[in-house]
Amino acid sequence: MDLDSLTGEVLERCDLLARFTEEPGRLTRRFLTPPMHDVHRTLSAWMLEAGLQPRVDAIGNLIGRRASPSNDSHVFAVGSHVDTVPNAGRYDGILGVVLGIAAMKALAGRSLRHAIDVIAFSEEEGVRYATPFLGSRAVCGTFDPVLLTRHDATGITMGRAIQDFGLDPTDIPDAAYTAGQLRGYFEIHIEQGPVLEALGLPLGIVTAIIGQSRRMLRFTGRAGHAGAQPMELRRDALVAAACFIRRVEQIAQATPDLRATVGNVIVEPGAANVVPGMATLTLDVRHHDDVVRLDVLARLLDEANGLADDRGLGLDSTAILDQAAVPCDVELTERLAIATGTTHRLVSGAGHDAMIMASHCPMAMLFVRSPGGISHHPDESVLHDDVKAALHSTIQFLGERGA
Amino acid sequence: MDLDSLTGEVLERCDLLARFTEEPGRLTRRFLTPPMHDVHRTLSAWMLEAGLQPRVDAIGNLIGRRASPSNDSHVFAVGSHVDTVPNAGRYDGILGVVLGIAAMKALAGRSLRHAIDVIAFSEEEGVRYATPFLGSRAVCGTFDPVLLTRHDATGITMGRAIQDFGLDPTDIPDAAYTAGQLRGYFEIHIEQGPVLEALGLPLGIVTAIIGQSRRMLRFTGRAGHAGAQPMELRRDALVAAACFIRRVEQIAQATPDLRATVGNVIVEPGAANVVPGMATLTLDVRHHDDVVRLDVLARLLDEANGLADDRGLGLDSTAILDQAAVPCDVELTERLAIATGTTHRLVSGAGHDAMIMASHCPMAMLFVRSPGGISHHPDESVLHDDVKAALHSTIQFLGERGA
Repeated sequence: MDLDSLTGEVLERCDLLARFTEEPGRLTRRFLTPPMHDVHRTLSAWMLEAGLQPRVDAIGNLIGRRASPSNDSHVFAVGSHVDTVPNAGRYDGILGVVLGIAAMKALAGRSLRHAIDVIAFSEEEGVRYATPFLGSRAVCGTFDPVLLTRHDATGITMGRAIQDFGLDPTDIPDAAYTAGQLRGYFEIHIEQGPVLEALGLPLGIVTAIIGQSRRMLRFTGRAGHAGAQPMELRRDALVAAACFIRRVEQIAQATPDLRATVGNVIVEPGAANVVPGMATLTLDVRHHDDVVRLDVLARLLDEANGLADDRGLGLDSTAILDQAAVPCDVELTERLAIATGTTHRLVSGAGHDAMIMASHCPMAMLFVRSPGGISHHPDESVLHDDVKAALHSTIQFLGERGA
Repeated sequence: MDLDSLTGEVLERCDLLARFTEEPGRLTRRFLTPPMHDVHRTLSAWMLEAGLQPRVDAIGNLIGRRASPSNDSHVFAVGSHVDTVPNAGRYDGILGVVLGIAAMKALAGRSLRHAIDVIAFSEEEGVRYATPFLGSRAVCGTFDPVLLTRHDATGITMGRAIQDFGLDPTDIPDAAYTAGQLRGYFEIHIEQGPVLEALGLPLGIVTAIIGQSRRMLRFTGRAGHAGAQPMELRRDALVAAACFIRRVEQIAQATPDLRATVGNVIVEPGAANVVPGMATLTLDVRHHDDVVRLDVLARLLDEANGLADDRGLGLDSTAILDQAAVPCDVELTERLAIATGTTHRLVSGAGHDAMIMASHCPMAMLFVRSPGGISHHPDESVLHDDVKAALHSTIQFLGERGA
């Protein structure tokens, strides 16, 4: 099968897998929901065809192994996740799995140094149990069993969901690779952003997964009648929030590579004829350098406090998340760049299973251009030639690496 | 009964009426809901005691009349409304009715030139049928019968609600005063704003009811991943909205007597990790001079368009409301000022039944200080001495006027 045909097959397979959904008419496939059985059955058949022996571990990861000819215990893993957000696109996660299988199919006759695992992680998006990376945490031995008591929106515990899927949650510790067993991890993923498109590039080498801080800020003023309250006697919480939102953009634009976002504002009471008494907003700050991120975060919180003080408002700040940046492995990334001939480097602004895997083994990551930067949306797409380039790169990299 | 005791009675009566509610534990009394029967029964007894003959018209207004000794057909009316917003305070509207009855009680022995109607309007807040001033519109002969087909939140038409209350909606035209019959209308109302409190004044003479324009503005940009989208490639709808909100405040502060408010913003998709693709906000602009109001509105819409253009966003503007300012009658207001000895004048930022009545007869209005400017809230309050001053003023004014 030539590279063009194999690329066509990859895209057809992504289309086919998008039919396995919880909701008719749109793609929603959360952790261990029934359509995940269809995904496993289908991927297992493709794995077998590509010379991979499939198995499902206790957290629901589907792992297809091509054994090492030299019989050593070392494994090199390639993969991504097969769960989705609600009303998802058809490439986020699954493309990396299907490409991994396709590359192994192309490499079927080639001798590789290590065993290869193609991993379809059962959970990355954090939708069903409001916590992400369940699959990769289990594989790295860092899955926290207290999570098993969490309930989903319908009251089903994670432990029960695992049992309902036909698995035994007490076996989760066995899902972990032994120390030193995993020689590396490689993930192909759509960029989910507009950078490669803006540069006219099909692929990009990821240098780091960005660190992020998230805060909830609440400005508290005093609600009042929009007609009865003169401007000079107001303590309008929304105007303070608005000044802050503008400052977030200004400071982010003045700081190279920083990404800062106010993604939501909730106004209370939120009526057209009432001066806002309360405005609660989310703040998301990301940078590949943790020092820069924390410095900007501190400045932004100072700004918010200054705005509140100047306007006689209260300000509460709640820490939601602080996640350090995760650099990709320099040596493995260098090999990836050489093997693929891809030179452009960029940071990943989103979290990925690769972030968790990096705590366990050398990690490298390849981004595929996202037309329009669109992701987590039915309009998510990829270009045939970009996927072809990604497949070629993966074959080169795994062939090189394993050889 | 001396003025202090009568003031105490007014406040006790407001407390008592606050018990008549649709919802246990909080005061909610919408148009012709069952507790309105209790209000009518109670107010009718007090009216009779004050020498007023009560009747209920077909829109549910309770009107207590003291006939003219001279047998002419002219009537001078004093009143306010007895419906409330959900989770209301106990003075908005009802204070003016109870004060009117108390003043008539105090004037029981005094000869007045005209008949006096104390009107308890059945509807002013616009809560149940999303349209305000039902009671005063009927009295002015401007009630639109098409409203009778409107449904409330439970599917009951206004016509049915009127029938269920024991009234006949086909009689609504009879609720109107005949041409020239009404010689004037006087309303006492809590200020619902902080102006009198800031000045340390118990009462204020209203010179006009402010005009208002309301718009819904929607900035449309492009949603994107908060991590994956660099600042320079964003089209963030919320930042544009934030710049606009700040400009609204600046322009309002620079325009004497203008009140401009963004009372709500809805962000879509509204997730912490997504760059906002859409931000929809309400704009409320008020001024006693319609020319100023419309000029500022046009400038603000220009600002919004400019912001959208500069940022590559779309902007939609929807007109929700345009209401001209209503001046109080100059002569009647002058007599009110002289009779009461109250000199401070202010505009009403909220709409009132008086606004409708002004289309039919000379209208004057007196505001009572609102501690904290708080209204439409259970914490709404009045001070004993302020109510005493209002009662004294009302007795003076009605005595003067009628004599």
